[in-house]
Amino acid sequence: MPKYMQIADEIERQIQTLNLPQGTKLSNIQELTQTYQVSKNTILKTLKQLEDRGVIYQVQGSGIFVRRKKRKGYISLIQNQGFSSDFEDDSEKARLLNFGTLSANEHLASQLQCPVGTPLYEVERLHFFRGQIYCYEHSYFNQEVVSFLNQSIAETSIFEYLNQALHIQVGFSDKYLNIQSPSSEIANHLNLKKTDSVLKIEEVYYSSSGKAFDYSKNYYHPDHAQFFIQS
Amino acid sequence: MPKYMQIADEIERQIQTLNLPQGTKLSNIQELTQTYQVSKNTILKTLKQLEDRGVIYQVQGSGIFVRRKKRKGYISLIQNQGFSSDFEDDSEKARLLNFGTLSANEHLASQLQCPVGTPLYEVERLHFFRGQIYCYEHSYFNQEVVSFLNQSIAETSIFEYLNQALHIQVGFSDKYLNIQSPSSEIANHLNLKKTDSVLKIEEVYYSSSGKAFDYSKNYYHPDHAQFFIQS
Repeated sequence: MPKYMQIADEIERQIQTLNLPQGTKLSNIQELTQTYQVSKNTILKTLKQLEDRGVIYQVQGSGIFVRRKKRKGYISLIQNQGFSSDFEDDSEKARLLNFGTLSANEHLASQLQCPVGTPLYEVERLHFFRGQIYCYEHSYFNQEVVSFLNQSIAETSIFEYLNQALHIQVGFSDKYLNIQSPSSEIANHLNLKKTDSVLKIEEVYYSSSGKAFDYSKNYYHPDHAQFFIQS
Repeated sequence: MPKYMQIADEIERQIQTLNLPQGTKLSNIQELTQTYQVSKNTILKTLKQLEDRGVIYQVQGSGIFVRRKKRKGYISLIQNQGFSSDFEDDSEKARLLNFGTLSANEHLASQLQCPVGTPLYEVERLHFFRGQIYCYEHSYFNQEVVSFLNQSIAETSIFEYLNQALHIQVGFSDKYLNIQSPSSEIANHLNLKKTDSVLKIEEVYYSSSGKAFDYSKNYYHPDHAQFFIQS
C-alpha cells in the first residue's frame, strides 16, 4: 500500500477512535509533513484521498476539518470497492447462488463494451447484513480483463481478489438507479411479494486504464437497504 | 467564471457536439496549454473539473480520454447544483406549493447543525420533467447563511440565485436514500396510491466554508425518476 494511503488510513482511524465531531480543525499541511516525516506532495495525496472518502474537508486559507458520516448502516453509492467495504464490521456475508461462464450476447457486449461472443464469468449472489437479505446480485466479468475467477473466490470478496491477486484497480464506474417491481425470481430471492418495490442499481466498473470489466445488476430489498452519498 | 471553468465548459461542449465516443484520446496537457494559451496549472484544474463531471478520464503515462454518459433523462446524484442542472434542455419546471419562514425545531436544528430556534426559510415545490411530476421537494434554508429568499426566487432555480446573488458555493453534501411508502399528502402530490413506493432522498448541503445551509427531503416518483452516479 502506498505511503499516502497508509497515512490516510491512520488519520481516518484516529478520527473514528477519538470520535472527533464534524468541524474539528486538524493539523495543517506543514505539521502533517513533520508528524509523518514525508514530503508535502505525499500529504497532498493523503488529503485528496481523505476528501474523496468524505472524512475531511478543506477550506482555502483556513485549514483542514473533520467531516463525519452521521448515520450508520448506510451503503455508500460512491466508494468503488465492492460489497464488503460498505460495512464497518464483519456482518456482511455473501451466499453464492450460481457461478459459470458464458459468451457475451448483444446486451452484455454493449454494457461491457466488448465484441459479442467475448467469454464472460457469471456470478449470482445473495448479500446479507446482520443476517438479513439486503441484495440479490447478478454480475458479469469480462475474461479478457479478469483472467481468472472460480467458485471459491466468488464466495468471498471478488473486488479484494481482483485488486490483490490480479492488480485490477477500479478507475471509475457508472451506476444507474431506478425503482422496479421485482420479477418472480427476484421477489423469491429477496423474500418479497411481486407487488413490492425494489431498488435496482446497474453498475459498470472500469479499470484504471479505462477497460470495462464488470457489469452488475443489483436488486436491493426496500426495507433492509439504505444508501448514502457524500460528494 | 474562472478561466479553468470556461475551458472545461468549452471542452465538454466540443465532446458533445462532435459526439466523440468513449475512449477517444484527447490532446495532452502541453497541447492544451498551447491551444488555450494558459498555464499548466490552469489546465490541471480544468482536467480535474472535467474528471469530476465524468466527462474525461486520465490514464497515467498514457493520456486523457473521453468518458460518455450512456443514458439520457437520468438525474445525477453527485453533481451538487440543484434540480435545474440535471436536465440538458429547459424541460425541467418547478411549481411552488408553499413558501414561508419558521424557527428550527430539534429535528431541523440537528440536520442543519444550528441552535434550536434559528430562523429558517421553508420551501415546498413540485418538480416536473417534460410535463410529468417527478419530485416533491420540502426544503429548509438556514437564514444565518441564506440571508434572503422570497417567493419569486423560490419559483425559479434557488441554487443559481444562491450562487450568483449570495455567492454561496456548495462545498459538499450528504445524501441519504431509501425506499418508502408515501404518506397520504405525498401520494397526493405525486399522483400515487399509498401502496406505491417512493424514493426518498434527504440532503444536507454545506457551503465551501463547511456551514450547513440547506436541508431537503425529496420524494421521487417511482416511474418518472431515474438516477445515475459517475464516480
